[in-house]
Amino acid sequence: MPGMGQFDTVAIVGVGLIGGSIGLALRERKLARSVVGIGRRESSLAAATKVGAIDRATTDLAEGVALAEIVVVCTPVDTVAEIVLKAAAATPSGALVTDAGSTKQAIVAAVEAGWVDRGDGSQFVGSHPVAGDHRTGPSHARADLLNGRTVIVTPTPATPAGAVERVTSFWQALGANVTTLSPAEHDAALAATSHLPHLVAAALAAATPERLLPLAASGWRDTTRVAGGDPALWRPIFATNRGPVLAALENFQRSIGKLRDALEQGDDRQLLALLEQAERIKSDHDALGD
Amino acid sequence: MPGMGQFDTVAIVGVGLIGGSIGLALRERKLARSVVGIGRRESSLAAATKVGAIDRATTDLAEGVALAEIVVVCTPVDTVAEIVLKAAAATPSGALVTDAGSTKQAIVAAVEAGWVDRGDGSQFVGSHPVAGDHRTGPSHARADLLNGRTVIVTPTPATPAGAVERVTSFWQALGANVTTLSPAEHDAALAATSHLPHLVAAALAAATPERLLPLAASGWRDTTRVAGGDPALWRPIFATNRGPVLAALENFQRSIGKLRDALEQGDDRQLLALLEQAERIKSDHDALGD
Repeated sequence: MPGMGQFDTVAIVGVGLIGGSIGLALRERKLARSVVGIGRRESSLAAATKVGAIDRATTDLAEGVALAEIVVVCTPVDTVAEIVLKAAAATPSGALVTDAGSTKQAIVAAVEAGWVDRGDGSQFVGSHPVAGDHRTGPSHARADLLNGRTVIVTPTPATPAGAVERVTSFWQALGANVTTLSPAEHDAALAATSHLPHLVAAALAAATPERLLPLAASGWRDTTRVAGGDPALWRPIFATNRGPVLAALENFQRSIGKLRDALEQGDDRQLLALLEQAERIKSDHDALGD
Repeated sequence: MPGMGQFDTVAIVGVGLIGGSIGLALRERKLARSVVGIGRRESSLAAATKVGAIDRATTDLAEGVALAEIVVVCTPVDTVAEIVLKAAAATPSGALVTDAGSTKQAIVAAVEAGWVDRGDGSQFVGSHPVAGDHRTGPSHARADLLNGRTVIVTPTPATPAGAVERVTSFWQALGANVTTLSPAEHDAALAATSHLPHLVAAALAAATPERLLPLAASGWRDTTRVAGGDPALWRPIFATNRGPVLAALENFQRSIGKLRDALEQGDDRQLLALLEQAERIKSDHDALGD
């Protein structure tokens, strides 16, 4: 266990926006003896090295994690579990493996199903840094991306003792606030606060006739902003969180149905009440700070 | 007719964000001999005077427009037509009256139905500066609010000759680009690009459980931003554009229905295709510049 928030070798698998930002924060805050970046593409590794996110780069997962005290898997959600299991087979004894996936039930269940206990104190617990940007890739990485942000850690009854404390120390060292939720609670919460907004933004963008785009001003632009996110990253997020997203969508449909009814019926009092309710929730969110 | 984009007295009825910004632009660009601010509340008029948006303030509409070459009515949409007609009865001969309302069919029809032709060359044509902010009031007014933005001018077969050219010169003098559409075309376009996004944002905010707000990050915040707009301004916008908003909402429901079907059926290929379609429309919009 590291003392005073100092870590030995940290391996980051997938050095995009999140992985790159973790690396930058570790290096700027001098938290790790060495940061190893692991990726499939030499170009991403070169970009991560160039921005100063990693000390060393490799495309060989087993080699990259061979000395790691902590491994953070920051790849698209449909690849995380397999990489976690492969990494865990190659880490030194006592290593902590975590991830940064935006959905947790599917990942955590697959990791726990495939986990081979070497009896050496190796640990896995899922994480999700709730921070991001519609821009992706290591060139947009920032040392302060997680500073002041929330990281949700998702233990289960199978999570080894001490793993939550250890991963919490890691994220806190990067400036994040840590909250723990079960994987199911996490997925329901993120379905409502992140995946549903993305679905709605995508539907709104897709429903806008191209010929009207020149008249679309800041309201349209902000409401659809997240729909500019990478479809290759978002498709697996939806695919691994179907049930909760569909449940959140049902809530949304009830909510927009009330607005439609008020419009259809010319019920201006109800229309005003619904707009006021929405405005109140916005104010409550603003009051929480950023 | 003013030469070289110079105007005599311009009267602005309603000195909030839009009215105040028009006044600031007129005064900073030295486009008018005098800018008169007309409002119901002394406090708004005092704020508009303080930020330098108007030369003179009055709560008396007839007195305020008595010398006006141009009158711009910037009040909530459900009050515009009545104020336009009252103002037109008190202007000097040959005055041009326009407005800044976000919906046009209801306003233009009511003005044309109530218009009394004095046979002195007085003119009305509707306008809508497609610029705004979720913040309201004269204290957020900016001289550059309309600079580079689009103003839609909405003539009808009843619009007097020359009125479109005259109002176009006015808005262009403030730095805006002018497009003409019929009131019906305008309302259908804005239903899709502005009113529907507001409805969707409000429904999304209202569908979010309060207890999850601490987990709502930048995606949620941007997608719901416009729902923070003033319900008292938005209620009449919806109320005066019911049909087009309901039609735009139907398009949206078809669009989100396709996403829901793909999710329910686990059709990842279709899900990806729909996300890619939305992302393409976002790119097309970004490519238009801001």
